[in-house]
Amino acid sequence: MGSIVEELRNILAPGRVIVDSTVLAAYAVDQAPVLDFEMPLAVVMAESVADVQAVVRTCAAHGVPVVARGAGTGVSGGAHASKGCVVLGLERMNRILDLNPDDETAVVEPGVINADLNEAAGAHGLMYAPDPASFRMSTIGGNVATNAGGLRCAKYGVTRDSVLALDVVLADGSLIHTGHQTFKGVAGYDLTGLFVGSEGTLGIVVGATVRLKYLPRDVQTIAAFYPDFRRAAAGVLAVGRARVQPAIMELLDGGSLRQLDAVHGSDLSRRGASLLLIQTDGFGAVAEAEVVRNVLAAGGAAVTTEASAEAEQLVDLRRNSRGVEVDDEYRVGEDVAVPRSRLVDYVGELEAMAVAYGVQLKVVAHAGDGNLHPTFWVDRQDNQVDAAAMQRLGDALDKSITVALAMGGTITGEHGIGQYKLRWLGLEQPEPVRELQRRIKHLFDPAGILNPGKAI
Amino acid sequence: MGSIVEELRNILAPGRVIVDSTVLAAYAVDQAPVLDFEMPLAVVMAESVADVQAVVRTCAAHGVPVVARGAGTGVSGGAHASKGCVVLGLERMNRILDLNPDDETAVVEPGVINADLNEAAGAHGLMYAPDPASFRMSTIGGNVATNAGGLRCAKYGVTRDSVLALDVVLADGSLIHTGHQTFKGVAGYDLTGLFVGSEGTLGIVVGATVRLKYLPRDVQTIAAFYPDFRRAAAGVLAVGRARVQPAIMELLDGGSLRQLDAVHGSDLSRRGASLLLIQTDGFGAVAEAEVVRNVLAAGGAAVTTEASAEAEQLVDLRRNSRGVEVDDEYRVGEDVAVPRSRLVDYVGELEAMAVAYGVQLKVVAHAGDGNLHPTFWVDRQDNQVDAAAMQRLGDALDKSITVALAMGGTITGEHGIGQYKLRWLGLEQPEPVRELQRRIKHLFDPAGILNPGKAI
Repeated sequence: MGSIVEELRNILAPGRVIVDSTVLAAYAVDQAPVLDFEMPLAVVMAESVADVQAVVRTCAAHGVPVVARGAGTGVSGGAHASKGCVVLGLERMNRILDLNPDDETAVVEPGVINADLNEAAGAHGLMYAPDPASFRMSTIGGNVATNAGGLRCAKYGVTRDSVLALDVVLADGSLIHTGHQTFKGVAGYDLTGLFVGSEGTLGIVVGATVRLKYLPRDVQTIAAFYPDFRRAAAGVLAVGRARVQPAIMELLDGGSLRQLDAVHGSDLSRRGASLLLIQTDGFGAVAEAEVVRNVLAAGGAAVTTEASAEAEQLVDLRRNSRGVEVDDEYRVGEDVAVPRSRLVDYVGELEAMAVAYGVQLKVVAHAGDGNLHPTFWVDRQDNQVDAAAMQRLGDALDKSITVALAMGGTITGEHGIGQYKLRWLGLEQPEPVRELQRRIKHLFDPAGILNPGKAI
Repeated sequence: MGSIVEELRNILAPGRVIVDSTVLAAYAVDQAPVLDFEMPLAVVMAESVADVQAVVRTCAAHGVPVVARGAGTGVSGGAHASKGCVVLGLERMNRILDLNPDDETAVVEPGVINADLNEAAGAHGLMYAPDPASFRMSTIGGNVATNAGGLRCAKYGVTRDSVLALDVVLADGSLIHTGHQTFKGVAGYDLTGLFVGSEGTLGIVVGATVRLKYLPRDVQTIAAFYPDFRRAAAGVLAVGRARVQPAIMELLDGGSLRQLDAVHGSDLSRRGASLLLIQTDGFGAVAEAEVVRNVLAAGGAAVTTEASAEAEQLVDLRRNSRGVEVDDEYRVGEDVAVPRSRLVDYVGELEAMAVAYGVQLKVVAHAGDGNLHPTFWVDRQDNQVDAAAMQRLGDALDKSITVALAMGGTITGEHGIGQYKLRWLGLEQPEPVRELQRRIKHLFDPAGILNPGKAI
């Protein structure tokens, strides 16, 4: 087993191949629950496309799995180490290679941090639209691997909608370029779209050309407190019926408000049992915000009427809520999405589930997309596993999935299948569709060395 | 060769299998230049998913190619008959199966006409955003097959961005469902995106779930006349630098204005040598239009200051300009796209090409996307082919392609490769990328019966 490490050390510059056990352990997992901990053989910190190609070629020759990794902020285990793998860290490949304000595009290495790209774009009045909650840490490569969403994608789209072209190292170590530098392009099959969201199982993204959008001139923020969660969810539909497209529409239940209060000393949970946070932006932001306020007030909300500074602070709290706690086997955050018309029903079902299974629940939702992040948990008793509680937790999770699917939903709106959600994929996709994906995987990676056991 | 027709007649209901030679000839071609005319064995007008499955199974058993077809408005020959094929017409499958105003989605059969879907959506304050110039005739299935764009996709995206899920009949006649009914969904590989734009070569789309957007409350239209084409193109960049995102940004050169005048009796070409037509929409439309007017006037444009009724009429003229003439071998419309920063240079190059090669030129452009539709032509002399003129036309076309590629562009922004543009695909995509697509094609359609000789 040492031979591949030796070989990688011989090929790569000093400092790139790491076998220190503390580092290996840290790079063995992302932020998802760990079902089956595996230590990688080595962590390689690539600094160039040539490094990535060398690692893939060497691993291919040895039949060793390669798990590509950005910042490790994923929550589905897409970057968990596979058995006997090399973890390929891309975070040192963090250069913005080009940013053309007239083309409104940027060319980036995979390790560029989302927030860094946004800051560079902002200097030109532009923004990179996808903004996962982990945007201050997560990398563009990781965003591409999971087709990450975020708060403002109801209006501005998900990662797929911002990616024009990719540089990808294939399973044999060869490098291809897919897509187009232009906003539009339909030459041949959409290979770019196929790689986006494929979680490093079809190839390793070593470069991306992304489209930038215009930084809005004006942003209006509205906080609407409701006496219950279902009425807040109904507010989402009411805004839709007014045919106003907010940039952000975040829904928080009482559990989420209590958590924010506990962490930040705020008094949100005293002000309502649920909160709908809405941002409108652009030249019409003020007019849109007025319509939104009226619609929400008519639906029973206490709406902020003052300047929106406080509401903006709430959006920041919501945006930065990732990292407050990391999921583990006792606490699992979900990522279902349902058709918007089912939001109210689904929210009601979630509350009923928590009661029925005797588990804790909090919910935040990118409600404009119908994408909900319920977190279910049971208390850990002095590091003793309470088997009955774990069973109830598992049952509640399963139920939350099957109910979402029965409503026409999906098991993952933006986090990806990774390793953790594989258990439920067969409930959403019938066997012929899964088999088609396995055959595509086999076409791209016949030896199965790219992030095996993930995504499909 | 008669046996498959007999078999199809036995399987399908009366009136669905057509062998009348006038019909066969009409369904043998779309609106692209015809390089190699082939008569189909039969035209089958499918009325159900089961019909499509039966046709594909029968053709698979006989090794007979199947060319799926919507309204035949494509301009790249993607629906031209292949040798010895059955043309599978989908225009009778034209039902809107569901339109849910709260979900903001619709489920349609492939033969639904784009404008019909828009009208149905409009009743709920919604719209189907992609609007190819052929929207009054073209079908959603055809739009999906080519990943069609249109006038307003700089702001609202192309077909891919509006398609959530597909029902697809595969080459063995089996039916799969891809994607999700929700706005977001990242379970497994993006099969939906792979089918969109694949021009019927990977499977036959028999149903689509599409996302609808909000019909804008207000639309402002601005017409800006310029003394020359390059300054008009520069206006596009100036609007971008003001970080205003118009819904529509159409650029027309002098040749296009003269043509509109000839057809409609207008006096556009007297008012300027080039026209930039811009629509802003939404709650901020008026404020955006004011910024646009100021920016364009500062760039040397004569900008309409009156109510925008006249400008709106111009947009209608532009929008309905398809069908005024159909391309043939003497007159070829192109579909290149270049990065926006190269628009002015490219427009200058086009004008120089027309002079250098002694050919006629007119240009319209979805300028917000950098997507240009130059049409080059030579006059047909009493049905005599002037070989030298045809050579000059071919040379000009080739040059327009190579210059666009040298600027970082693509050979097709929205029309697709079809059959006509295959000659140039190798200039854009290197062999390994083409080979990867051939292998994907082989995976989906090992016998090669689905629209052979197109797209890749």
